[in-house]
Amino acid sequence: MAERDTTVPETTETVEDDHQNSAHGFALRERLDAREQRGLRRDLAPTERVAARSRVATDPGDGISNFAGEDQVILASNNYLGLADNDRVQQAAAAAAREVGTGAGASRLVTGDTPVHRALERNLARTKDTERALVFSSGYAANVGTIAALAPDVIFSDELNHASIVDGCRLACAETMVYDHADADALGAAMARRDEQARKGEDESWLVVTDSVFSMDGDVAPLAAICDAAERHGAWVMVDEAHATGLYADGAGIVGHEGLGDRVQVQLGTLSKALASQGGYVAGSEALVEHLANAARSFVFSTGLAPPAAAAAREALAIAREGERRERLWNVVERLRDGLDEMGYRVLGESQILPVLVGNRSKAVAFGESLAEHGIVAPAIRPPTVPEGTSRIRVAPMATHTEREIERCLEAFHEAGRAAGVLDE
Amino acid sequence: MAERDTTVPETTETVEDDHQNSAHGFALRERLDAREQRGLRRDLAPTERVAARSRVATDPGDGISNFAGEDQVILASNNYLGLADNDRVQQAAAAAAREVGTGAGASRLVTGDTPVHRALERNLARTKDTERALVFSSGYAANVGTIAALAPDVIFSDELNHASIVDGCRLACAETMVYDHADADALGAAMARRDEQARKGEDESWLVVTDSVFSMDGDVAPLAAICDAAERHGAWVMVDEAHATGLYADGAGIVGHEGLGDRVQVQLGTLSKALASQGGYVAGSEALVEHLANAARSFVFSTGLAPPAAAAAREALAIAREGERRERLWNVVERLRDGLDEMGYRVLGESQILPVLVGNRSKAVAFGESLAEHGIVAPAIRPPTVPEGTSRIRVAPMATHTEREIERCLEAFHEAGRAAGVLDE
Repeated sequence: MAERDTTVPETTETVEDDHQNSAHGFALRERLDAREQRGLRRDLAPTERVAARSRVATDPGDGISNFAGEDQVILASNNYLGLADNDRVQQAAAAAAREVGTGAGASRLVTGDTPVHRALERNLARTKDTERALVFSSGYAANVGTIAALAPDVIFSDELNHASIVDGCRLACAETMVYDHADADALGAAMARRDEQARKGEDESWLVVTDSVFSMDGDVAPLAAICDAAERHGAWVMVDEAHATGLYADGAGIVGHEGLGDRVQVQLGTLSKALASQGGYVAGSEALVEHLANAARSFVFSTGLAPPAAAAAREALAIAREGERRERLWNVVERLRDGLDEMGYRVLGESQILPVLVGNRSKAVAFGESLAEHGIVAPAIRPPTVPEGTSRIRVAPMATHTEREIERCLEAFHEAGRAAGVLDE
Repeated sequence: MAERDTTVPETTETVEDDHQNSAHGFALRERLDAREQRGLRRDLAPTERVAARSRVATDPGDGISNFAGEDQVILASNNYLGLADNDRVQQAAAAAAREVGTGAGASRLVTGDTPVHRALERNLARTKDTERALVFSSGYAANVGTIAALAPDVIFSDELNHASIVDGCRLACAETMVYDHADADALGAAMARRDEQARKGEDESWLVVTDSVFSMDGDVAPLAAICDAAERHGAWVMVDEAHATGLYADGAGIVGHEGLGDRVQVQLGTLSKALASQGGYVAGSEALVEHLANAARSFVFSTGLAPPAAAAAREALAIAREGERRERLWNVVERLRDGLDEMGYRVLGESQILPVLVGNRSKAVAFGESLAEHGIVAPAIRPPTVPEGTSRIRVAPMATHTEREIERCLEAFHEAGRAAGVLDE
């Protein structure tokens, strides 16, 4: 129930005995108003071409475009390698639509299991150096399906984990202990406390779950230390590489980058960010994948991933592994991070995601709007997504951003930052 | 924990004080073995082309194809209109990959909201005669996201509702009352009982949720009587048209067919069955869609549906609405149902799904295998999916099945039915 519902006057009780008329409806307008008043209402924001690193809004007549006719640089997409408009990836999608079908038509367990699914899973497993991989229709589905299917007795979850991990913990009905963000010591302490509470000889399954790269902070979980803590207690480790797949270690993510493949039992990720498609995956042992193919309800009871999406992701993975795109991305990231640093901004994190700290929430919103007026699309992130006082602009560069676009971005940060009072002078 | 885990010998307690070595792992091999022993283990079943109404297994070397080189008639796909290999649908997917991008790159609320998403949603809303529609990355995501976002205090759910509805009820943490399958009287009685229990003046939100066409029984929920019961108690009604979208009432489903659009507050469905793509949708009021776009976590925290999938579904919906494909499907369905009836089979349901009752589970499995030897792919459905004693063969025809294929199917049922002792004589 939304907060405003509590203001319903007592007089509604006059119909209390008339069950024919008793209202058991949903006050959605009121909930939306409450959201609006708390400054939490969001709107869909049409864009012409997702694939682009920049765009010219071409449809000023629909009343939605704010910056009609102006050339904008998009720094807000997770299409990190810029592969969503890559020829090879597009042709792979088109070929799969033609040769295999536009949809899988059924669950993978019935008649929806095609050669493109198998080929993608083989390549993911090879990239991750695991026995097998399994693809889901989304990263959300991969997380909720996997956690619920593992059915851990106890889950240790980073406080900033993605919403789909949180929902997976809820759906699994596990005892969930949330530990301080990216803090392996806090995790170890929580496990030690829980071990003391555990009844002797009880055979509980424990799962530690964490993102590798965190979307809003751009920082990286201390995976080796997390594995150390988990191993001391015999727990399993599950790592969501949504924002790292395709970008680190020949495409393998942070787990591969840090050589932890043998210590992380469940590797997850999405196909919808660097891999320019849609879907999620799990990589791990033969037993893990067989178990999930049988027990993950979001897999068993969903139509297989659309063949064009599977084929696009496979081609994007191949390109990511070739390396040149990754190199271009990291060059763009370095240019932007250095430029923003030099201007006096505090840029958080240590990945391709560059959160520029602003602080005050209304200042961050004004700053975001000012950047937009300068043609830079980068969203202001504010509470409740991030803690009060840490509002920020999230800058997400792509491998395809040109030198000129990077300059335009830095110029805009320079001018808008002073106008919004974020930069001194 | 799998059942076999209880057989772990007591001797594991000898390490009870050594927390360094205490095992908190997951016995997945044991769980798989337990599943195997209960006859519940399922395997992925590779197919060459999902789109096909029949196939010739061309890859006998991979050790997986059971019927290499034989021509098979596929009666196991939800690609009911046979549109997954339709030229127009394939071209729409390819054009969207090229013109908009292979992936949406971000959540619809960030930069993933494209003209193809908007066009699809407009057409879904027009088909459903609702104010708005919203697409999700899968039907599973649509159900869990919508039910959890509505956050009903009480849910009344048909006992045979799809797994994604069940998971939505779990995720919503609502008080869920399961009523007898397709029984509006039982629903009314449950609501009356619950109304008596409800504290006076308490303002609870109630949601009745049901599939329209049930996948394993092929029957149709008594929606008008369900709406009557819901209205008596002021509850909302949510109908999942996964297996009806595109097939009834100019594509609108059973709700449209029965003229109940004004009485069903939440209409759901998938894009992955008759619409030959991937994804799910919700259609309803402006307030409903705006609420979901803000509060449905599977929408907010997922990358937008891949543009090729959105474009394919839109084109498939247009073809479905033209009518000729639907007519062909219903002709095939009538031919098969009549033929099976005449042979003496009991064919359940009243939709395009034809569940042929066998009874005994091992008999059903043997029958399914015998059909496969005759080149007919139609799965045996057995407990726990259906109640003991009601095992069946689920026959799912497509609009594209030819007269010759229908005849082959009927011949196979004739011969295999006698061989398996399902038919007399």
